[in-house]
Amino acid sequence: MLEHRLEQFSQYLKDTNVDAAFINSTENFFYLTGFHTDPHERLLGLLVFPEADPIAILPGMEKGQIRDAGWTKEVIGYADHENPWQMMADKMKENGIVNVRTVGIEKQVLSYGRSESFFELFEDVKVEDIEGELNNMRVVKDDHEISIMKEAAELADFGVSVGVEALEEGITEMEVLAKIEYELKKKGVAEMSFSTMVLFGEKSGQPHGNPGDRRLKPGDFVLFDLGVVWKGYTSDITRTFAYRSVNEEQKAIYNKVKEALDASLAISKPGTRIGDLDQVARDIITDAGYGDKFPHRIGHGLGINVHEFPSMSHLNDGVLKEGMTYTIEPGIYDPEVGGVRLEDDVLVTENGYVTLTKTPKELRIIE
Amino acid sequence: MLEHRLEQFSQYLKDTNVDAAFINSTENFFYLTGFHTDPHERLLGLLVFPEADPIAILPGMEKGQIRDAGWTKEVIGYADHENPWQMMADKMKENGIVNVRTVGIEKQVLSYGRSESFFELFEDVKVEDIEGELNNMRVVKDDHEISIMKEAAELADFGVSVGVEALEEGITEMEVLAKIEYELKKKGVAEMSFSTMVLFGEKSGQPHGNPGDRRLKPGDFVLFDLGVVWKGYTSDITRTFAYRSVNEEQKAIYNKVKEALDASLAISKPGTRIGDLDQVARDIITDAGYGDKFPHRIGHGLGINVHEFPSMSHLNDGVLKEGMTYTIEPGIYDPEVGGVRLEDDVLVTENGYVTLTKTPKELRIIE
Repeated sequence: MLEHRLEQFSQYLKDTNVDAAFINSTENFFYLTGFHTDPHERLLGLLVFPEADPIAILPGMEKGQIRDAGWTKEVIGYADHENPWQMMADKMKENGIVNVRTVGIEKQVLSYGRSESFFELFEDVKVEDIEGELNNMRVVKDDHEISIMKEAAELADFGVSVGVEALEEGITEMEVLAKIEYELKKKGVAEMSFSTMVLFGEKSGQPHGNPGDRRLKPGDFVLFDLGVVWKGYTSDITRTFAYRSVNEEQKAIYNKVKEALDASLAISKPGTRIGDLDQVARDIITDAGYGDKFPHRIGHGLGINVHEFPSMSHLNDGVLKEGMTYTIEPGIYDPEVGGVRLEDDVLVTENGYVTLTKTPKELRIIE
Repeated sequence: MLEHRLEQFSQYLKDTNVDAAFINSTENFFYLTGFHTDPHERLLGLLVFPEADPIAILPGMEKGQIRDAGWTKEVIGYADHENPWQMMADKMKENGIVNVRTVGIEKQVLSYGRSESFFELFEDVKVEDIEGELNNMRVVKDDHEISIMKEAAELADFGVSVGVEALEEGITEMEVLAKIEYELKKKGVAEMSFSTMVLFGEKSGQPHGNPGDRRLKPGDFVLFDLGVVWKGYTSDITRTFAYRSVNEEQKAIYNKVKEALDASLAISKPGTRIGDLDQVARDIITDAGYGDKFPHRIGHGLGINVHEFPSMSHLNDGVLKEGMTYTIEPGIYDPEVGGVRLEDDVLVTENGYVTLTKTPKELRIIE
């Protein structure tokens, strides 16, 4: 499986006349090697070539771990006093890699300082961005990735259920948040995929609100937005509930958001223009007079990163393919009434879609 | 206070003939503007000049927040469909900034892609690294920073006390970790400064072990390593306890680590060579025959980043100054017996030091 990814990427380098590519992001390193690690300020890298075998570079103490993860190709493990750039140069020379004239890097990831160190290994190179190709490869998930993402989504559903259980009059947003993460940690979740959001009442009306010491009151909307990192993959769910009571305006907003989500899900299948998923939802919300209260795109690709390709905006002319995973998350935010957002993680199947997140979406009033 | 930082940095640009500096890290942006934000993939930046007023660049929706944080100088707030680079170019032109021949960037932070966009605003510029100057400025903390770091350290002490309270036979590392973070979140801690470490028994013998489902047994060492991010500043504490009983070898290791920590603290005062803090501790551990079981430097600078300047290694010939903050964290790791690490956050005072972390360090056996 990973073998296949490396072959596909090497073929791309061949087709685009890139002589050597240097992968520096932990995400693409994981995608191509199967080994997930974060060496912080230390160098982690993968050299990929059109013909020659790839070479991984990492701190020496992690050499055993990348072998355990199944990497059978070359590894340079360096000690803190060694120069990994020089070791790469020596290894390339040893492997007969010469005449490198065009190099590929992840332009938005590699620091200027590291790019200098890398370019110095060659004479006067031309620079190409290889990030787009890797982003595109990662868009369609294989069965192994999908099975992990299902587990990650299940944990997100569980997080929402813990949050709902925790609700009681007078509790603060941070207290509920703490309970959710506590129960997820007990299930072995080491990391959330982003800062968990628990927002009550008028605070749910801020698309980027921060949980704090706002206390829960009857009549509040309660918005949860959370996800986990699980075996290297992410989930991301949003649900909104009413606490004790709901008024007509809240009900109208909720049902409009749900209608928008349903419409966008309904056209999720291979061949659909991606931008249309945003457009159908936006049209529903705009026709109901809430157009200016839905200030963000409908969603984003989901996988190793919680935000990855494709960007689910109305401008995206790409089409859905089987195996794509992304979020659909329409919202209406009113600073007075509060806000509603509903978000599912979606997998495109052969003929349609399934949602990986399963928490019901009918308006629920928590007693 | 921030005014003074900006003046000092502008003076540095003048002295080193840098015509325009572009700050892209959230940490240095916060240090110079007082505004802490993480715009994720969106651009955040601060242009600083030798003479002209600085210009902040951020997503338009955060313009109000940087004003609330006290920033009175120029701000460019851009919408998603706008080009922030072009807006910077226009603003510089408007402010009469011309003839930029040398630019300063944070070489290890700024991505190659963004450096291209930035350099394109000028004709054929020379590039200087301005990260070192900012790192050096940040090493000595002012009274405001110190008061926040005291609060952050107090929260770290609290985290350890929660962990100790949670210990009971059969509990797992992850369960204890979850309780610690739960109680800290309830106190308003939104973010830990790094992945919390709770390690039992032989797992404490791994300097970079990961908490998991190892269950607590009598005779285990229990190692906590944790810290919080608080008002933009970090803390970082390690304590090791014995559970129910302790044998002679464990006692010997513990006392040797404590002796090393005490020796390193004892020479913490203005004028001491930084490398000596590592050397005195290392000599004690080596003389006791554990030299190969102390594989890391004695500590690291602490502030906005949990790892910042200075690096407290035996090679550092710099000297301590009043207002510096750093960790001292000797350890002895034996894969059979388990490991001990003790870590304090230290502030250099006029005549000596104080530890910001206050949890006692005498060997304690938890019943």
